[in-house]
Amino acid sequence: MKGTKVVRLQEEVKVNDPIFLVGLPGVGHVGKLVAEHLIEELDAEKIIEIYSHHFPPQVLVDENSEIHVVNNEIYVCSTGKSDIVILVGDHQSSTGEGHYELCDLYLDIAEEFGAQRIYTLGGFPTGQLTYSEEVLGAVNNPELTDELKKAGVVFKENEPGGGIVGASGLILGLSKFRNIDAACLMGLTSGYLVDPKSAQSLLKVICSIFDIEIDEGPLEERAKEMEKIVARLKEVEQQQQGIPEAIRDEDLRYIG
Amino acid sequence: MKGTKVVRLQEEVKVNDPIFLVGLPGVGHVGKLVAEHLIEELDAEKIIEIYSHHFPPQVLVDENSEIHVVNNEIYVCSTGKSDIVILVGDHQSSTGEGHYELCDLYLDIAEEFGAQRIYTLGGFPTGQLTYSEEVLGAVNNPELTDELKKAGVVFKENEPGGGIVGASGLILGLSKFRNIDAACLMGLTSGYLVDPKSAQSLLKVICSIFDIEIDEGPLEERAKEMEKIVARLKEVEQQQQGIPEAIRDEDLRYIG
Amino acid sequence: MKGTKVVRLQEEVKVNDPIFLVGLPGVGHVGKLVAEHLIEELDAEKIIEIYSHHFPPQVLVDENSEIHVVNNEIYVCSTGKSDIVILVGDHQSSTGEGHYELCDLYLDIAEEFGAQRIYTLGGFPTGQLTYSEEVLGAVNNPELTDELKKAGVVFKENEPGGGIVGASGLILGLSKFRNIDAACLMGLTSGYLVDPKSAQSLLKVICSIFDIEIDEGPLEERAKEMEKIVARLKEVEQQQQGIPEAIRDEDLRYIG
Amino acid sequence: MKGTKVVRLQEEVKVNDPIFLVGLPGVGHVGKLVAEHLIEELDAEKIIEIYSHHFPPQVLVDENSEIHVVNNEIYVCSTGKSDIVILVGDHQSSTGEGHYELCDLYLDIAEEFGAQRIYTLGGFPTGQLTYSEEVLGAVNNPELTDELKKAGVVFKENEPGGGIVGASGLILGLSKFRNIDAACLMGLTSGYLVDPKSAQSLLKVICSIFDIEIDEGPLEERAKEMEKIVARLKEVEQQQQGIPEAIRDEDLRYIG
Repeated sequence: MKGTKVVRLQEEVKVNDPIFLVGLPGVGHVGKLVAEHLIEELDAEKIIEIYSHHFPPQVLVDENSEIHVVNNEIYVCSTGKSDIVILVGDHQSSTGEGHYELCDLYLDIAEEFGAQRIYTLGGFPTGQLTYSEEVLGAVNNPELTDELKKAGVVFKENEPGGGIVGASGLILGLSKFRNIDAACLMGLTSGYLVDPKSAQSLLKVICSIFDIEIDEGPLEERAKEMEKIVARLKEVEQQQQGIPEAIRDEDLRYIG
Repeated sequence: MKGTKVVRLQEEVKVNDPIFLVGLPGVGHVGKLVAEHLIEELDAEKIIEIYSHHFPPQVLVDENSEIHVVNNEIYVCSTGKSDIVILVGDHQSSTGEGHYELCDLYLDIAEEFGAQRIYTLGGFPTGQLTYSEEVLGAVNNPELTDELKKAGVVFKENEPGGGIVGASGLILGLSKFRNIDAACLMGLTSGYLVDPKSAQSLLKVICSIFDIEIDEGPLEERAKEMEKIVARLKEVEQQQQGIPEAIRDEDLRYIG
Repeated sequence: MKGTKVVRLQEEVKVNDPIFLVGLPGVGHVGKLVAEHLIEELDAEKIIEIYSHHFPPQVLVDENSEIHVVNNEIYVCSTGKSDIVILVGDHQSSTGEGHYELCDLYLDIAEEFGAQRIYTLGGFPTGQLTYSEEVLGAVNNPELTDELKKAGVVFKENEPGGGIVGASGLILGLSKFRNIDAACLMGLTSGYLVDPKSAQSLLKVICSIFDIEIDEGPLEERAKEMEKIVARLKEVEQQQQGIPEAIRDEDLRYIG
Repeated sequence: MKGTKVVRLQEEVKVNDPIFLVGLPGVGHVGKLVAEHLIEELDAEKIIEIYSHHFPPQVLVDENSEIHVVNNEIYVCSTGKSDIVILVGDHQSSTGEGHYELCDLYLDIAEEFGAQRIYTLGGFPTGQLTYSEEVLGAVNNPELTDELKKAGVVFKENEPGGGIVGASGLILGLSKFRNIDAACLMGLTSGYLVDPKSAQSLLKVICSIFDIEIDEGPLEERAKEMEKIVARLKEVEQQQQGIPEAIRDEDLRYIG
């Protein structure tokens, strides 16, 4: 397969001025957890599969030992207030060039569906195991901030300080060239572990924006399991107070 | 040489609805060992050489000090039951993009020959020096599993957990788009050493599938040599019981 | 976005035989500091934005939480003596191939504006925290050296010994093919820290070349802050006299 | 500059059925030292410069502080017996793909000049500081070995065991597709240091092949300087006999 292959699973898809949500793997997998949870709870329907030589040369194996080539997928669903198009996936692009190319492809699809707004979902790494409910925002149009503050999003000057790397940021940036308003919503998370608790905080913001209610049950359960792991890690951390912080961080980075 | 060069050594190749076998270098070189053994024992004939800028810029030197550019090669042979087309090679692609491109080329050739089924052969790393006879399977069509179980292949939910990386997996995945049934058969192996013993286990499965008998002699000999090395490694391992496992693993990784 | 996107912010730009200045991020960010300072002090006007898949897939966030995709930008301004076109940016190319492609693009723009001379600004790493006022030069035409020596630039045989890596060097080299005279001016700097003091030395040379006066105030302030950090580092260095130099260097490399 | 740029310095070049010699940077810089020595002693004339985005984005600085973009160059000269075309350069390709593309370009040029034979010159790393006069050979046509043995070249089954990586090997391999006989001649060298002494051994073989005499003076001088460094290294090595070999090797790898 050369280049990128877009497989459309339905001949005609009807959506009206949808919101485009992006939840790809990344820091703490916060965005991916929220997007997958929404797909589950809102009974979203898969309409597109995207394969690309910019993804790793890898297949994943399911419970029936059946494989699929790693890909990104697009789902649609309706809430009372508006239609939603959701982009999720196994991987982000392996190359810088691929990021630019694929993000443009995602925006082509967003435009095709007439998306009026884009939200990219992600995590913001704090480097600390202490939990925070905060959801940090960045926008491609400052007029969006007031509305988002009402939904609980926090904005801070020049934050994240290192910018946003990967699809969550780039989709935001490239939307500007197409005059589509877009915001990146980031749940605060340690950066060391998959973080369903941070995903819950981000989900609350999404529910507020879309004015919907979503059962947090499954996320809640995963969050509880993860809390136990974090508790054990904190114990270890206390016992290692003599050890320089850099080394302790190093330990955590490889978990989860 | 720009791109990829396919050198055909014969004007016309006659094969009937063959099975396509893939044994490229990988974990424990299990797939490559089996494929090369089959070529030897079944007197297979080389029909195609594939050169590509996606392979390393390297030549190998033979017993007459003659070199050849690293490549992949395709052989054909007949068994009583069916014709076989075998893909072997010195290297897999060095780049992710190359993997996608070359796997598609391999499937073009498989289709050209009218391949009705594909088996990719590989190794599954256990991280342990203890030997297991198991051959793990993954498929691109769940209907294949019953037939393969009869030949001794084991299937486990979501295994391998990290998916399958490289040509063995990708050929499986891309075959799906061409409606060719394909399975990946993986001999369990430590992952640290070239493993002719695991290759013997995988060969037994292949013989059962094709209903043929193959002399295991040469693999047996190499397996015995390797067993001696493994025995020495285990001794070292016992002497190092005080040393954390991670470090001992590190030692083994660089052998063979 | 495939490839590179040049966004022109003005329909017509009037400049007469300008000098083309390049100050991209690099060793000690010396070139970037000088170029940005000139843009500020000379009230230069932004006329072009350059986006490229050769830059990292990243957005930066400003004080209003508004993002922009990392880019390079071109400004113009006038001094009494001559017009100046200034290239600055967030990043250099992430790939070797991208460096060649983008540097050629920059020279296309330089030629379009009729640039008669190019100066690329950078830092030369000494590996030592001791401050030096020296500005080292390299040229693509030996006839330039006399003129530059008068402005305070120092030339040394075969220096820098390892050549010049990145846009500062490559623009110099590729200008040769277009018969545009070009020089690289490098402020000496430790190589471990952002160095506004070295930027001041380089600014003095630029002022002499263009026969202009520029307020060094803001650079001066940043230099003073940095001097405090350097002083602390030197203290640490003295306390570590027993530790091999290689390790001490290692420590410093990660600061700033 | 996109792609590769071939700059021809002369309109018409007259050479008759020349031998094509390749001496690019590599193990111990043995091939490069010999090729540059031949260019100097045989008063060879530069006829072509090759620039490419596959080389590093770098310029080198000469004794007049004048820069040139890193490149490969082609020289021609005549000996009594035959004309010689020599390829030398600052760097080999930075990418695998570039190696394939550039080696094909070199062979296009070799064919254009009607080259009847190609010798690529290189070093073969022994991993030991003990000096050996041996010059190892590999060929793309076994008929060449007898002739080369008479000139002092040694051939060993399957050596080098890891094949030959880079342009020296690939040019050999790709020549086969064009029916040009080619051999790689490798001076044995530690692999840790630039090795003018090994270059002298290789030069002797070259002189024998071409039936010419070349003053070894400059190589001899550099070899003597290097011998002093090696002597010091051996002293250090003896003092470190308690230290595992792997670590001692590590030390040497970073010298020269």
